[in-house]
Amino acid sequence: MKEFLQRYPKPIIKKAADIRALVFDVDGVLTDGSITYDEGGREIKTFHVKDGQIIAHLKRAGILTGIISGRESGALSKRASELKLDFCHQGIVDKATVFEKLMEFHKIKKKQVAYIGDDINDLPVFARAGFSVCPADAPIYIKAQADLITFVPGGRGVVREVADLILAAQGKLEKIVQTA
Amino acid sequence: MKEFLQRYPKPIIKKAADIRALVFDVDGVLTDGSITYDEGGREIKTFHVKDGQIIAHLKRAGILTGIISGRESGALSKRASELKLDFCHQGIVDKATVFEKLMEFHKIKKKQVAYIGDDINDLPVFARAGFSVCPADAPIYIKAQADLITFVPGGRGVVREVADLILAAQGKLEKIVQTA
Amino acid sequence: MKEFLQRYPKPIIKKAADIRALVFDVDGVLTDGSITYDEGGREIKTFHVKDGQIIAHLKRAGILTGIISGRESGALSKRASELKLDFCHQGIVDKATVFEKLMEFHKIKKKQVAYIGDDINDLPVFARAGFSVCPADAPIYIKAQADLITFVPGGRGVVREVADLILAAQGKLEKIVQTA
Amino acid sequence: MKEFLQRYPKPIIKKAADIRALVFDVDGVLTDGSITYDEGGREIKTFHVKDGQIIAHLKRAGILTGIISGRESGALSKRASELKLDFCHQGIVDKATVFEKLMEFHKIKKKQVAYIGDDINDLPVFARAGFSVCPADAPIYIKAQADLITFVPGGRGVVREVADLILAAQGKLEKIVQTA
Repeated sequence: MKEFLQRYPKPIIKKAADIRALVFDVDGVLTDGSITYDEGGREIKTFHVKDGQIIAHLKRAGILTGIISGRESGALSKRASELKLDFCHQGIVDKATVFEKLMEFHKIKKKQVAYIGDDINDLPVFARAGFSVCPADAPIYIKAQADLITFVPGGRGVVREVADLILAAQGKLEKIVQTA
Repeated sequence: MKEFLQRYPKPIIKKAADIRALVFDVDGVLTDGSITYDEGGREIKTFHVKDGQIIAHLKRAGILTGIISGRESGALSKRASELKLDFCHQGIVDKATVFEKLMEFHKIKKKQVAYIGDDINDLPVFARAGFSVCPADAPIYIKAQADLITFVPGGRGVVREVADLILAAQGKLEKIVQTA
Repeated sequence: MKEFLQRYPKPIIKKAADIRALVFDVDGVLTDGSITYDEGGREIKTFHVKDGQIIAHLKRAGILTGIISGRESGALSKRASELKLDFCHQGIVDKATVFEKLMEFHKIKKKQVAYIGDDINDLPVFARAGFSVCPADAPIYIKAQADLITFVPGGRGVVREVADLILAAQGKLEKIVQTA
Repeated sequence: MKEFLQRYPKPIIKKAADIRALVFDVDGVLTDGSITYDEGGREIKTFHVKDGQIIAHLKRAGILTGIISGRESGALSKRASELKLDFCHQGIVDKATVFEKLMEFHKIKKKQVAYIGDDINDLPVFARAGFSVCPADAPIYIKAQADLITFVPGGRGVVREVADLILAAQGKLEKIVQTA
């Protein structure tokens, strides 16, 4: 577990230790950015098993999880219900306002919330989250605004990496692994 | 933003500064070249969210966007309408003639149009565009004919990279990011 | 074939030589971890041809093959029947208990069974298998618990690599290739 | 074009110069080895646009093209008819016999035919083709039997690379590019 945490700077581990809510974008974060349509224009969407498997552990650790996405699809609805997320807001144009209201409703302070996004429309949320994260393949000028750039690119376990970091920083990951 | 532009040679930035229309091929450019069929022979097609998110910003900057594709599919029609492109011509055998007519209709001069293509049938359009671009994974002999080879391969944000370059060269990208 | 075996440490080759059953997880092992849904929430799943092509050779070598998966899908049922696996248990919450019962039923001792898994819920099975394996892209703390980390990541022939290793360690792979 | 041919050893270029028929396997060659099923067990298959675009040029150069596949699917039927291949044999258990009969029927000598395959069941065909090729991601012991290992892995333009090599070795690729 030491090996795991050693890959991150201390101020980042400190930020992760305070987190009580993990909120994330979908396309380019939970997915690799692929927008797939069949011949009839119906969307097909690919998520990653690694992201899903940590959500239950976040829940047990008392950490809120939720989605704010600019797009919407039946595939995401299915995945969100399967993951038992605390909220899943789709088709949101103004992410910052929704984010603010949600944090107020759940009584989460700025320093207690981490947000993972990968593009221009996520920047207003970065400014409102105590811990902002983007995937390894985000545009250069998005990376410049994030507190942390994950080792993995979008769709390859970005949420998992941040969740592992949060659980490890809070001293809970080791127990999860040992009592598996 | 400086960091972003520093990755390109000055003559390329100069070409990008003149652009008023960005035209592109689909398979191998907007997609990674995958041709996917289901059991009934219906096509499924995968685009990238990063390409889509910059189109609105190109529009606001007064830059025309459009597609000329040799193939055709319902998936592309769906994606094109979602992106609100200025034009989307599918099933085109002679791309050069269509390209010429379109530029004439929209009163775009050669030096004002960038074209992104990745294969032999795109070469006649390269000769008619002031700024020709191909993805990182185009064949060697296509790369040899292009003004710019993008850092990313087809389907991983090729249009986004060129759009960012155009907007940055025209001094508009910084404002887009700052006022997000 | 020498070249093939030289990539593995001797104690690993020794473990492989004893194997009479190869059991594996699905998501992240037989697949690259992608969880894909269409607009109606129906799952689409991608396996690898290389994994499939070696199963028949394992059978002829008298080695049992089977799946224990936490999830379930029609796609996996189709693939499992196509591969003619000895068993395919889906939707299993407690993998360790199912694993123990199966090994007892088939009269396989601990040192005779290899298990390939990639996440926290596979760790209890690692403890019950004589030879535990995880893919190249498993989390750091899973890799730390596995006897072998394959060269390839999930979905790119993980089962094939382990099957080749087992057949080579038992002196059977060379004949398979020579008499093809 | 010189740059293109310089990447290959001279004996390989010599072999390519003699080729009058290019025959290939599907899974792992024309595709990246993915076997994809939907919830109902129907197969979805992904090919690459680069492979398709060169077939017409091979035809014009008088080179026969065809498929011998161990599996079968509606997706492949669709792709094969779209590519106007000279033949497409699916569900073939004994590839070598089919290959021999086809070459006899088309009056193609051993040194005139190139075959691309990636696995154990392709080895008997390797022995019957004057020029045997496998993708970059074939198993080590398959690579050991092939005359040429392509630079690209399966599904990323393997047929295109071999077709380009054949056309270049026969002095036809340069003209194709120049008169595009």
